[in-house]
Amino acid sequence: MSERIEADYLIETAYPLAEAAAAMAGEQSSGTFVPVPGETPELKARSAAQVVALEDLGPVDAPSLPGGGRSDGPHRRARVTLSWPLANLGPSLPNLLATVAGNLFELKQFSGLKLLALRLPHAFADAYPGPAFGIEGTRRLSGVAQGPLIGTIIKPSVGFTAEETADLTRTLCEGGIDFIKDDELQSDGPTCPFDERVRAVMAVIDRHADKTGKKVMYAFNLTGELDEMRRRHDLVAELGGTCVMASLHSVGLVGMAALRRHAALPIHAHRNGWGIYDRHPMLGVSYVAWQVLWRLIGCDHLHVNGIANKFCEADDSVIASARACLTPLYADKPYIAMPVFSSGQTAAQPPATYAALGSADLIYAAGGGIVAHPHGVAAGVASLREAWEAAMSGTPLEEYARTRPALAAAIGVSR
Amino acid sequence: MSERIEADYLIETAYPLAEAAAAMAGEQSSGTFVPVPGETPELKARSAAQVVALEDLGPVDAPSLPGGGRSDGPHRRARVTLSWPLANLGPSLPNLLATVAGNLFELKQFSGLKLLALRLPHAFADAYPGPAFGIEGTRRLSGVAQGPLIGTIIKPSVGFTAEETADLTRTLCEGGIDFIKDDELQSDGPTCPFDERVRAVMAVIDRHADKTGKKVMYAFNLTGELDEMRRRHDLVAELGGTCVMASLHSVGLVGMAALRRHAALPIHAHRNGWGIYDRHPMLGVSYVAWQVLWRLIGCDHLHVNGIANKFCEADDSVIASARACLTPLYADKPYIAMPVFSSGQTAAQPPATYAALGSADLIYAAGGGIVAHPHGVAAGVASLREAWEAAMSGTPLEEYARTRPALAAAIGVSR
Repeated sequence: MSERIEADYLIETAYPLAEAAAAMAGEQSSGTFVPVPGETPELKARSAAQVVALEDLGPVDAPSLPGGGRSDGPHRRARVTLSWPLANLGPSLPNLLATVAGNLFELKQFSGLKLLALRLPHAFADAYPGPAFGIEGTRRLSGVAQGPLIGTIIKPSVGFTAEETADLTRTLCEGGIDFIKDDELQSDGPTCPFDERVRAVMAVIDRHADKTGKKVMYAFNLTGELDEMRRRHDLVAELGGTCVMASLHSVGLVGMAALRRHAALPIHAHRNGWGIYDRHPMLGVSYVAWQVLWRLIGCDHLHVNGIANKFCEADDSVIASARACLTPLYADKPYIAMPVFSSGQTAAQPPATYAALGSADLIYAAGGGIVAHPHGVAAGVASLREAWEAAMSGTPLEEYARTRPALAAAIGVSR
Repeated sequence: MSERIEADYLIETAYPLAEAAAAMAGEQSSGTFVPVPGETPELKARSAAQVVALEDLGPVDAPSLPGGGRSDGPHRRARVTLSWPLANLGPSLPNLLATVAGNLFELKQFSGLKLLALRLPHAFADAYPGPAFGIEGTRRLSGVAQGPLIGTIIKPSVGFTAEETADLTRTLCEGGIDFIKDDELQSDGPTCPFDERVRAVMAVIDRHADKTGKKVMYAFNLTGELDEMRRRHDLVAELGGTCVMASLHSVGLVGMAALRRHAALPIHAHRNGWGIYDRHPMLGVSYVAWQVLWRLIGCDHLHVNGIANKFCEADDSVIASARACLTPLYADKPYIAMPVFSSGQTAAQPPATYAALGSADLIYAAGGGIVAHPHGVAAGVASLREAWEAAMSGTPLEEYARTRPALAAAIGVSR
């Protein structure tokens, strides 16, 4: 990879496309609104961003965002690639963000602007450690050698005491679950203090491991200030826990990088708030671009929503995000993160998920798909595992369900 | 203030309004998509979010965002206030963000959802320090007893070497400037390493202070990883600098809070990336809500754009942001941050700015308004100061310019 940073954008503008692209490149490098005396040809050669590609995608009926500065003439969409010299900023993710996703979202030239993809020089891989555990480490710690980790989320989202959380954990462990996570709303409130929860839950997990040899992976949500996160991580590690969880957008780039440098456990990264960045098709940052930053920093698990989810994201967007997480960043440092499928997942979606993704290196987390199974939690877990077996072996769900009552009940067919 | 957190939202939905509001409250507290056995009446009483207010704002022609799950029936807008028990999360800003600005942006019920305002119990002021310097400390360090600090941004944005930056700083100091900031694109790239820049610039500022008694405040952009920011801060402090700058969205909540706990200098907070959060009128987080978080954390200066700016933000939004920064958060802990006006500011805007805001406790940063003044930098600075004198004394600019050639040239009238 060259020593230039590249970013692809989807833009919408009423200005001539080349002029609009040049404005982006100028504002995000050596230029500003007006010519200034110091921007010499030598300085420009050294530091100006370049428009590497520009593809006209045609006109649109109406501007997507208000505030675009020119209303005469049709608004058009285009795909633009800009490049920057690495020497403008060095391999620093916080400074990268100000460069590729800073002021340009409010430029008057645009009635729409979205960052679609990022390609970064190898210097970033030299500067950032990437996931310490990833797929292989997660499989080792959870004892799940192949297929997805079957997981769930503690619900109610918030409001349980530590003991109530441990009680539900016991039921889930006995039901054969691989992975449990706190809800992102549950961290360290007075109703369910973090330390109490970890102690109560780990006692259950340890007892279950002693009995069965299976140590369930529990992602404790340690989201908080840096010193709190470090202390909470250390408690989980000390008690033999195997995963911590943090909310990416709440913690931010710098906090997550500091947590990663401290951590000795896999980091389960929750993306709540994603809608701010990516819900509008013509504003913000696509998850395909976004996940590059979090993988460089070193998140081991990255939430990607799920097929036929309960939120508003389309399936192709979900699959593009998951595929991105599983695509190597660099040949020598792939920095693969394990995608986490979650939100309205049941025994119905594995075939479509596996067909679209071509991989089962993932965490498959279901709430209702487990606890609402008519035969109970164990049957809920079994039905998900069976649905994945069917998907991976290319057997239709209904056929596979013929001899498997848990799956049959989950997908609502009689044996 | 009660021990509940309150947040106001603007929503747009095709669902019955009360049902949509209840879905928000459920998803962001004890509920989930389906009823779960553990969500008992006792738990709900303890932890459920409540819909405190709901005002129908009428129908809209078309949905603002795609993905709203029901297309039959008209979409309506409404203003909703939700409240949460503080005990769900405790006074933790990262966890607050997951609660008030987490998954709800992707709920299928909504074709638009924006967080408008936040009201937090006093426990947050007990947990977070607020600005260490604010208006009073900034005036003391810069020696500007009244009126705005007249400031500028080093341009070209990026590409100058350390020596070129220092050369321009010399010109600006000799021109009578109060405040200078790095562009947000300039932090610690190999073309202009942070340490070299600070040493070169501080030598100029010190020489000027020795000669004139005026120590110009320079906001060095230290945006980077936490250890880098701490080290850079310490260098600035050691060399007698009086301000550091960081990009809020690049650093994130946890990183900014850790910087604040370390810092012994005012923190100048740049909001590049704001467009992601607030450009769409029906998606994201308004700056009026956003600034509450950054002030609790302890940012001393907060960018608010400017009247008649070069970006796409409307004037009333700019003024609402600035007024919010100047409105006390708590009676005993006002945590006022100094608003920074920037982007296309010249001698033309002070009267409208002062009339709308009613305060000159701000930083007024101009680029072209200073360096492009026909009589040079000193006249550019003088013209801005004179424009503010006129505004604060209620004198029309043209009248005040009659005996002031710098102002006259800036606003293009003959004396």
